Amino acid sequence: MNESDLKRLLHAVRAGELDPEEAIARLRDLPYRDLGHTKLDTHRELRQGYPEVVLCEGKQVAQAAEIIGFQIRETAANLLATRASPAVFEAVQGLHPELRYNALGRTIALRRRPVEPAKGHILIVTAGTSDLPVAEEAAETAELLGSPVERIVDVGVAGVHRLLAHRARLRSARVLIVVAGMEGALPSVVAGLVDKPVIAVPTSVGYGASFGGLAALLGMLNSCAGGVGVVNIDNGYGAACLAHLINRL
Amino acid sequence: MNESDLKRLLHAVRAGELDPEEAIARLRDLPYRDLGHTKLDTHRELRQGYPEVVLCEGKQVAQAAEIIGFQIRETAANLLATRASPAVFEAVQGLHPELRYNALGRTIALRRRPVEPAKGHILIVTAGTSDLPVAEEAAETAELLGSPVERIVDVGVAGVHRLLAHRARLRSARVLIVVAGMEGALPSVVAGLVDKPVIAVPTSVGYGASFGGLAALLGMLNSCAGGVGVVNIDNGYGAACLAHLINRL
Amino acid sequence: MNESDLKRLLHAVRAGELDPEEAIARLRDLPYRDLGHTKLDTHRELRQGYPEVVLCEGKQVAQAAEIIGFQIRETAANLLATRASPAVFEAVQGLHPELRYNALGRTIALRRRPVEPAKGHILIVTAGTSDLPVAEEAAETAELLGSPVERIVDVGVAGVHRLLAHRARLRSARVLIVVAGMEGALPSVVAGLVDKPVIAVPTSVGYGASFGGLAALLGMLNSCAGGVGVVNIDNGYGAACLAHLINRL
Amino acid sequence: MNESDLKRLLHAVRAGELDPEEAIARLRDLPYRDLGHTKLDTHRELRQGYPEVVLCEGKQVAQAAEIIGFQIRETAANLLATRASPAVFEAVQGLHPELRYNALGRTIALRRRPVEPAKGHILIVTAGTSDLPVAEEAAETAELLGSPVERIVDVGVAGVHRLLAHRARLRSARVLIVVAGMEGALPSVVAGLVDKPVIAVPTSVGYGASFGGLAALLGMLNSCAGGVGVVNIDNGYGAACLAHLINRL
Amino acid sequence: MNESDLKRLLHAVRAGELDPEEAIARLRDLPYRDLGHTKLDTHRELRQGYPEVVLCEGKQVAQAAEIIGFQIRETAANLLATRASPAVFEAVQGLHPELRYNALGRTIALRRRPVEPAKGHILIVTAGTSDLPVAEEAAETAELLGSPVERIVDVGVAGVHRLLAHRARLRSARVLIVVAGMEGALPSVVAGLVDKPVIAVPTSVGYGASFGGLAALLGMLNSCAGGVGVVNIDNGYGAACLAHLINRL
Amino acid sequence: MNESDLKRLLHAVRAGELDPEEAIARLRDLPYRDLGHTKLDTHRELRQGYPEVVLCEGKQVAQAAEIIGFQIRETAANLLATRASPAVFEAVQGLHPELRYNALGRTIALRRRPVEPAKGHILIVTAGTSDLPVAEEAAETAELLGSPVERIVDVGVAGVHRLLAHRARLRSARVLIVVAGMEGALPSVVAGLVDKPVIAVPTSVGYGASFGGLAALLGMLNSCAGGVGVVNIDNGYGAACLAHLINRL
Amino acid sequence: MNESDLKRLLHAVRAGELDPEEAIARLRDLPYRDLGHTKLDTHRELRQGYPEVVLCEGKQVAQAAEIIGFQIRETAANLLATRASPAVFEAVQGLHPELRYNALGRTIALRRRPVEPAKGHILIVTAGTSDLPVAEEAAETAELLGSPVERIVDVGVAGVHRLLAHRARLRSARVLIVVAGMEGALPSVVAGLVDKPVIAVPTSVGYGASFGGLAALLGMLNSCAGGVGVVNIDNGYGAACLAHLINRL
Amino acid sequence: MNESDLKRLLHAVRAGELDPEEAIARLRDLPYRDLGHTKLDTHRELRQGYPEVVLCEGKQVAQAAEIIGFQIRETAANLLATRASPAVFEAVQGLHPELRYNALGRTIALRRRPVEPAKGHILIVTAGTSDLPVAEEAAETAELLGSPVERIVDVGVAGVHRLLAHRARLRSARVLIVVAGMEGALPSVVAGLVDKPVIAVPTSVGYGASFGGLAALLGMLNSCAGGVGVVNIDNGYGAACLAHLINRL
Repeated sequence: MNESDLKRLLHAVRAGELDPEEAIARLRDLPYRDLGHTKLDTHRELRQGYPEVVLCEGKQVAQAAEIIGFQIRETAANLLATRASPAVFEAVQGLHPELRYNALGRTIALRRRPVEPAKGHILIVTAGTSDLPVAEEAAETAELLGSPVERIVDVGVAGVHRLLAHRARLRSARVLIVVAGMEGALPSVVAGLVDKPVIAVPTSVGYGASFGGLAALLGMLNSCAGGVGVVNIDNGYGAACLAHLINRL
Repeated sequence: MNESDLKRLLHAVRAGELDPEEAIARLRDLPYRDLGHTKLDTHRELRQGYPEVVLCEGKQVAQAAEIIGFQIRETAANLLATRASPAVFEAVQGLHPELRYNALGRTIALRRRPVEPAKGHILIVTAGTSDLPVAEEAAETAELLGSPVERIVDVGVAGVHRLLAHRARLRSARVLIVVAGMEGALPSVVAGLVDKPVIAVPTSVGYGASFGGLAALLGMLNSCAGGVGVVNIDNGYGAACLAHLINRL
Repeated sequence: MNESDLKRLLHAVRAGELDPEEAIARLRDLPYRDLGHTKLDTHRELRQGYPEVVLCEGKQVAQAAEIIGFQIRETAANLLATRASPAVFEAVQGLHPELRYNALGRTIALRRRPVEPAKGHILIVTAGTSDLPVAEEAAETAELLGSPVERIVDVGVAGVHRLLAHRARLRSARVLIVVAGMEGALPSVVAGLVDKPVIAVPTSVGYGASFGGLAALLGMLNSCAGGVGVVNIDNGYGAACLAHLINRL
Repeated sequence: MNESDLKRLLHAVRAGELDPEEAIARLRDLPYRDLGHTKLDTHRELRQGYPEVVLCEGKQVAQAAEIIGFQIRETAANLLATRASPAVFEAVQGLHPELRYNALGRTIALRRRPVEPAKGHILIVTAGTSDLPVAEEAAETAELLGSPVERIVDVGVAGVHRLLAHRARLRSARVLIVVAGMEGALPSVVAGLVDKPVIAVPTSVGYGASFGGLAALLGMLNSCAGGVGVVNIDNGYGAACLAHLINRL
Repeated sequence: MNESDLKRLLHAVRAGELDPEEAIARLRDLPYRDLGHTKLDTHRELRQGYPEVVLCEGKQVAQAAEIIGFQIRETAANLLATRASPAVFEAVQGLHPELRYNALGRTIALRRRPVEPAKGHILIVTAGTSDLPVAEEAAETAELLGSPVERIVDVGVAGVHRLLAHRARLRSARVLIVVAGMEGALPSVVAGLVDKPVIAVPTSVGYGASFGGLAALLGMLNSCAGGVGVVNIDNGYGAACLAHLINRL
Repeated sequence: MNESDLKRLLHAVRAGELDPEEAIARLRDLPYRDLGHTKLDTHRELRQGYPEVVLCEGKQVAQAAEIIGFQIRETAANLLATRASPAVFEAVQGLHPELRYNALGRTIALRRRPVEPAKGHILIVTAGTSDLPVAEEAAETAELLGSPVERIVDVGVAGVHRLLAHRARLRSARVLIVVAGMEGALPSVVAGLVDKPVIAVPTSVGYGASFGGLAALLGMLNSCAGGVGVVNIDNGYGAACLAHLINRL
Repeated sequence: MNESDLKRLLHAVRAGELDPEEAIARLRDLPYRDLGHTKLDTHRELRQGYPEVVLCEGKQVAQAAEIIGFQIRETAANLLATRASPAVFEAVQGLHPELRYNALGRTIALRRRPVEPAKGHILIVTAGTSDLPVAEEAAETAELLGSPVERIVDVGVAGVHRLLAHRARLRSARVLIVVAGMEGALPSVVAGLVDKPVIAVPTSVGYGASFGGLAALLGMLNSCAGGVGVVNIDNGYGAACLAHLINRL
Repeated sequence: MNESDLKRLLHAVRAGELDPEEAIARLRDLPYRDLGHTKLDTHRELRQGYPEVVLCEGKQVAQAAEIIGFQIRETAANLLATRASPAVFEAVQGLHPELRYNALGRTIALRRRPVEPAKGHILIVTAGTSDLPVAEEAAETAELLGSPVERIVDVGVAGVHRLLAHRARLRSARVLIVVAGMEGALPSVVAGLVDKPVIAVPTSVGYGASFGGLAALLGMLNSCAGGVGVVNIDNGYGAACLAHLINRL
């Protein structure tokens, strides 16, 4: 229910066409459709700037497939499912000819309608090869939402000249997503080289005292460079949402 | 040394006006001035979009005052010092008539030259009264950098109608900074109501199992809403840097 | 041994029918039966208001099946087994025709005798689809103990209007169980909308910095809303016990 | 704004006495009053069953005194301030003759109007003498809300007979609050002896590996007894809110 | 109430000298005296082998002094108070001429009646000078309970020959208490040299990644030598209780 | 090399039968035999009171089998291997007819020579059925070392009367090993009932906020009862070593 | 690009053979070759003293094999791959006849050209048999880099005489790598016996409160012996790099 | 007792000048002097390459002063005391005219005899001004031990060009000590630029999620650059010991 709905309702009350008791009931009604076991947040795109996305992790294959199937059949929106195992893709790939699976990033995507063209592009920078799955999740998300993506890979801080060689490309982006595991130092160095917002994504890449990405996470939160926002460990999806919201400005 | 400097140098070498050996030495020379105990990063404003800021925490009063004094006397830049105790302000307040101290936010600011006008404003939302010091640090920082600031205070999630009453104002901002301690749930709720980037700042407000802000930090990192970037606990300054970089786009 | 047993015993001593030495021995005897490898706490129902429940996690299939079998054969009580894998159910399902397995909640239940009718109902609210297994464990437990259950699912705080649409139902319950993973913010919002006790159940749903449910747990413990009691991560069973004890009042 | 206000407003619209545009504005107005730096949640008592309470911790003495003073002067409600240092009490004690300070529990209370009589009493049980401040915060809160309180003190599990001697009193309460530091084992033992809800409050009493109450908190969350709800470390206030909501049923 | 009391009571019932109702009341009465704010566990010495000890930490000076005063005046037992600040000693030192304060170990002791002579002695070994306060707390406790104490100090593992020079003394003790901070490695080395039980006491001596004694605690718990029991960080008192119980065997 | 060996050596030097240079070399030789990849600590039994035990965890099946085989063939000592998977037992069971495998406790034992009879027995008390594997590891170890073992199982603190019924048996032991997971409260209660040393073994039984046994470990370390020594999580072996060393006194 | 390349370039500019614009482009070009998905840091050996090494952990078998294959075919350098599963070795072993797999240390090595002879040797000391895989990773790395390696195994601190017997060998090394899990005490003892740098490697060997090597790591960081540098848990590779850099001096 | 002492002793036994029993006693005597409350490790300099140093932290002023006084009066060695408050210096400064206090590094030093000249110098690099106290502790230690020190300060990774400008100086050192708080990323970048050993010192500089230096510590342990050894948080002393041992090679 948006503002024009509200105006219409109140005018109906004034005109005696709608009982006040009934109006009270409707005013409790906010913009979503209740589908029983799921509340489909159909207005999220209007409200938040991007459609609801299916996080497959923690769901059974059948559950994930059912939700994806519902969105394909019952809506016309673009679709993104993240953390999708090959089994989930197998279960749904017959539902639409243009469904695409990114095995590295573990995403299922379907682009059915055009998205508003963005003003610039997002640059995704990764410290090492093992950070690529997270980077791919971010890239798939950003592109589905409408932001073009460029990539610079394997430029960890232990060979800082590799990064410095890309200074011009770093500066050409409107927003940067920097993905790193282990000590998570890359966002600090990148943020010191550009005057654009940097989204830092810690990854669980590492072992021992990386404690599943905690070391990288703490490193990024303590960045001595300003202008760095951090998302959850391995959360390429969230980084891309934030980067796209920025890129839309 | 910027690109035009580099061109000039290489043309000088070509013209035989500059010895290659000398050019090698100069090429090692990057844009900062070494002042002995401190490296003044004079080009940070060009490179990163905001000037160097003095973090007083962890420095002795005399050290902090010396660095602030140097910046007042030797540069024409605007000045910001954060985590400044009253003692630091006392030590420097005679140095310039327009120095201003924000006792709640513990910042010292001096605006001497105009900043590029920003396109919109930043909205700072706080969960409780105890979060105000962090919010003020953010507000002072953002305004010095050139972003106007609006505030909504005391709208924690335990009385969510207080927040919902401000929906229009929430949607009018270009970027939002959401400051919350305890369970740190406010950014998730706010991010679900707007289609703009949200910078979440956990605070150390709380006790017991808040573990100095850890609970709020983890809550924000695990936000079920996309589009949320998190900064360090109590880091109002960093949130404002990031918000301003976004607002400049 | 209850108070009337004690009176009888002491009167027997007075009457000279019972030797004091023998009485000493009996007075050591408290209300349980020792079955060798297990102490069957036969009076727990009288003492605590609900019968002993079999936690299958951490037990071998054979051990769990043996304990369940014993309770079916040797007692007339209702039965609940939690964290029961399909293998455990397979091992016991032939023992009684009315044994029921909830595959999502991983519970085995057998209702053989009526329970005291409760005064109102318990409302179980979940933040997301992945929290359903924990919610089901709670629902099965509450219903076996005698409290009717209603459910509101998938109303996480990132789309708070979905929750607000259910305000009337929220207020109709006598006790609420709120189940959430990730940042665990839902109980705070719910507790701000009702004047009834809220039992918060953090779940291990999430990844990265959720640290197996720690983020949700800390969030709930730091709730800025009063009136929230927290149980262990994924402990749907414990939440239902507490909710039922309240609902019996 | 409660339901009768809403009815009145809508009838006014129907009667043409109120312009729909104006009604829209008012409908945004939910039940609180905005006092500038604070949102006074005047309807919390109706909505949640207990009035807003002033948490003084983390606020400056002047801030706390101002909020307390406002509530004394501008409302007729009962007042409770928690974590109040003697300095806060000194700053406000002249404002009302019946203000009462509990030095052990660090609470300031003012009872000005009668509260709904509760059905039973709350029993507060403490493990040791050092847990008394938290117990007193709980007792003051419960009594102000309208629940009579009884106390059993110093019955830690290392001398379990001391507790068992009080079995009858334990069973006479409608709700129990159990306060314990160190290993936090007392709630498990108590919950095994009664058939009423138990609210467990871990305290920061202890040293070394108690890690500021973490040991007690984890102990209580892992209680092998069902029917135990846990609140934050040292959170006597929250325990009492929950206990009173239960006791009101 | 011990077994002979119980016999007497039951014979009185049999003889008709005691009413069964009255006997029920007395049977609830287990061996302690309720002094209002404190339960004096007068039979602990019989039950556990050592008297109740006053832990002053976490108590106000007045509270601690009151409890100590009560024990001096109302009982004839030996007295030990641990973690006693000089202020506590000042408050009580006039109460008995033989009260003794150990400033390093922060204990107040009063020996008024002889204790059962122990079979051997306890050897307390410390890694460094900074561990001495904890060692002294242990020594005072052990001696008051009746175990003679010997000491070897400053034999940390970084100069292992210093320890090895004392091999004979190490082997002469019946029980050993090994006190160490930092990496807490000394108990492993000592336990490898003797065939007697070793009680390991981690101390909070250290800085940085010692995390208040956590490093030493974990080191001792992971000791590769068998036969090591660990107590809480800085818990010299608990180590001595355990050592004395062993030494009494 | 023991003291008599040393005397013999020095007399040989005095008699001119041994060259001083040779004596220097021998004096470096302490009591173990170097077998290449393993140092067999042949004198551990003399030095520490119990033979070296094979911890199979973290070793490959082949490695474990080789070490066990060596001890069977090359020594006459009794043998104990802990954390032995069925695969390890399968690999060695043909080596000696009296090898015995305890499937629950995962131990392999071989008793070939008599051990010194102990003065009393060790009582192993467990909180729940799931703690039995750790209890069995302890029991096998204690018995191989020479201490008879009794058991009380399933007496967790949520039904404290089950424990109290065993007071006499608790008091009959010379040493007690108390095994508990979850909140780990049982050792505190037991230690309050006996005047003998209590060895507490936290187990990893539990889920969620038990964090792999951390909750039980912290609970035991913070025990409000004196006289409790704690070993590593699930370390039944270490508890038995310590208990036996005490029982030998 | 090294200094002589730079001279040549600048002379070419001076001679007019190279356009300044072209020179700018080349100056951005630092010493590495971009191979698309990987930046081959060809000059690392010159810059850091050892070649780039392939960490296979966290990479798919195919990815790891591709990188190894590239280095074998396209460079003449020596090769080292760490954390290589048997599957990785299987995938590459046909590529070169001299590839060698160390199954215990999980390394793949290829020595194709001589390395600069080192001045002394590195001694690797391990506490237990289970630490051998980490020690082997260190040994393979050190030898490929050019440092000869000696080993002392199974000399944990619970039998310190085993270590002391090797005092002469300990002192003969130029650098020592000490590998230990559990309490991680060995480096402290070793560092107290030698006047050479000690590199401490905590391992994840242990269980329960070893928390995946955290206990050993903290123990080593808190070593009471000076001269100890610590690397990540299980990081035999990093220890060897550091040891070799020292040994080259 | 060194090897020549041992030879003399054994020859004395052979010559009949020394009784074997007496020799046994002396052989127990290893190289230290027992001064009652302290074991003076007089041979540490010979054994480990640097003299014993007085850590004042955790000691009372009087204790620290006594130990320092003893070393000044009774030995001729150079002296270093770390973590010395001004009060400690005040207490000892009259004892020797050449005692020197470094207020920033909190060290007291006395150089009385020459030290062996080192081969090169140690370079200490710091990320920020607040890291200087730790750097000074390291510098004082290294110089007293005999290693000349150079410094590069304030070259944190957020302005990486400041560091790169010093490449030549970085490469001129034999060993580097890199001191950094916050995210602790500087050692990784430095180690990528040099072929010398890098000792990384995390500092407690930072706030919030730096958790007292934990973030920096984890960052350094997870460094993606090989050749980095880490010491405890704020442990400038330990870093210098290690660096000097390396520099002596």
